[in-house]
Amino acid sequence: MRTIGILGGMGPMATVDLFNKIVANTKAGCDQEHIRIIVDNHPQIPSRIDAILKGTESPLNKLIESAKLLEDAGADFIVMPCNTAHYWYDELQKSVNIPIVHMIENAVDHLLNRPQLSGSIMLLATTATIKMNLYQQIFAAKGLEIKVPSADKAELVAKAIDEVKAGRIEHNPYLKSVNDFMDVYAEQGIKVFVGGCTEVPLLFPYFKGNFELYDATLLLAKTAIKMATSENN
Amino acid sequence: MRTIGILGGMGPMATVDLFNKIVANTKAGCDQEHIRIIVDNHPQIPSRIDAILKGTESPLNKLIESAKLLEDAGADFIVMPCNTAHYWYDELQKSVNIPIVHMIENAVDHLLNRPQLSGSIMLLATTATIKMNLYQQIFAAKGLEIKVPSADKAELVAKAIDEVKAGRIEHNPYLKSVNDFMDVYAEQGIKVFVGGCTEVPLLFPYFKGNFELYDATLLLAKTAIKMATSENN
Repeated sequence: MRTIGILGGMGPMATVDLFNKIVANTKAGCDQEHIRIIVDNHPQIPSRIDAILKGTESPLNKLIESAKLLEDAGADFIVMPCNTAHYWYDELQKSVNIPIVHMIENAVDHLLNRPQLSGSIMLLATTATIKMNLYQQIFAAKGLEIKVPSADKAELVAKAIDEVKAGRIEHNPYLKSVNDFMDVYAEQGIKVFVGGCTEVPLLFPYFKGNFELYDATLLLAKTAIKMATSENN
Repeated sequence: MRTIGILGGMGPMATVDLFNKIVANTKAGCDQEHIRIIVDNHPQIPSRIDAILKGTESPLNKLIESAKLLEDAGADFIVMPCNTAHYWYDELQKSVNIPIVHMIENAVDHLLNRPQLSGSIMLLATTATIKMNLYQQIFAAKGLEIKVPSADKAELVAKAIDEVKAGRIEHNPYLKSVNDFMDVYAEQGIKVFVGGCTEVPLLFPYFKGNFELYDATLLLAKTAIKMATSENN
């Protein structure tokens, strides 16, 4: 069995979410059958979005520091529950000798392997994440189109995410307004929403409508479990 | 701000629970205001209960390995979300140069600081934890009595805990039978139940009745937040 390293803290609740999804989805009858997981919840890593859009301090140095910490502690591979941090993926991967699973590519691969994909896909993300163009590029490179919400709608997602980062999930004041615009898009043919920030899936249990929700954190958890427990990796 | 080390994996869900309670109870408006937390979720640590009651392999060597890993990774102090592991507390504390918060003493201190304590206190734990006598000794040393359920009731708690360790929380098949005997004890004057295994508080949201529930994991999370964020520690 391999040891999973979680490079986290971006944000902390998304890190708890990934850790929980790994433990909850591991087939184990007792403690000892579970996977060893080392987590570096490192919230002092500078804002990824500010670095990209406003040119503030790059998070790369602290990302590398955490990746090395996990490698030194014995992690066999790394998962990073923050979509935006994957902007520095190549440089980060070069800094360690263990593989880092690419969260966004992993999500696209899962979508491509669906038996049937009817309707369009939309990224549920903030304006900043949309402007960053990371999801759209990776989807396009794999031959899949992902639509994005209009700027005013993306602004509501950003507000909902800030509330999650401050600890409000079930009682998030933006739950209804986000769900409302998802319903409008669903009527226009969007049938799948992909959470484009790791805070978004935390709100998934509270969204209701005629659409499917794709949780990139859960897909990452499942890949991590497979890599940790299968013989050939 | 100090870095918290979580010596976990005993079991993994209890570790997720403590991590979640630290993050959820930290006053923070953005990622960067959260606390750095390093977790070693190490489920291969041998069964604590079997070691005490059946003389199987001691968990001490692997506990020390994890404590040193956390110290080397930069943790300023350690919290350990497993009551039973505190049986080896003294030897474990001697193996590292950073403090390890004693979970059970921390819970007793919180109980002693309550403004009013009416009715008796009962430990909600397995027969093994009861036989181990750890909680009772620490409570007695601080001048507080803690009652224990009868053997058949403790057996139900053990079964409920095994289900949690296998991932069944909300749909735990022993929820009702445990809640039923808690109601019977409540009628006999027990007004406070203390979770004596770190899996027990995971069931607290589903227990209902004329009693108070004391969550030693939440109390440990609050102490850890205080130690990490206050000036004088």
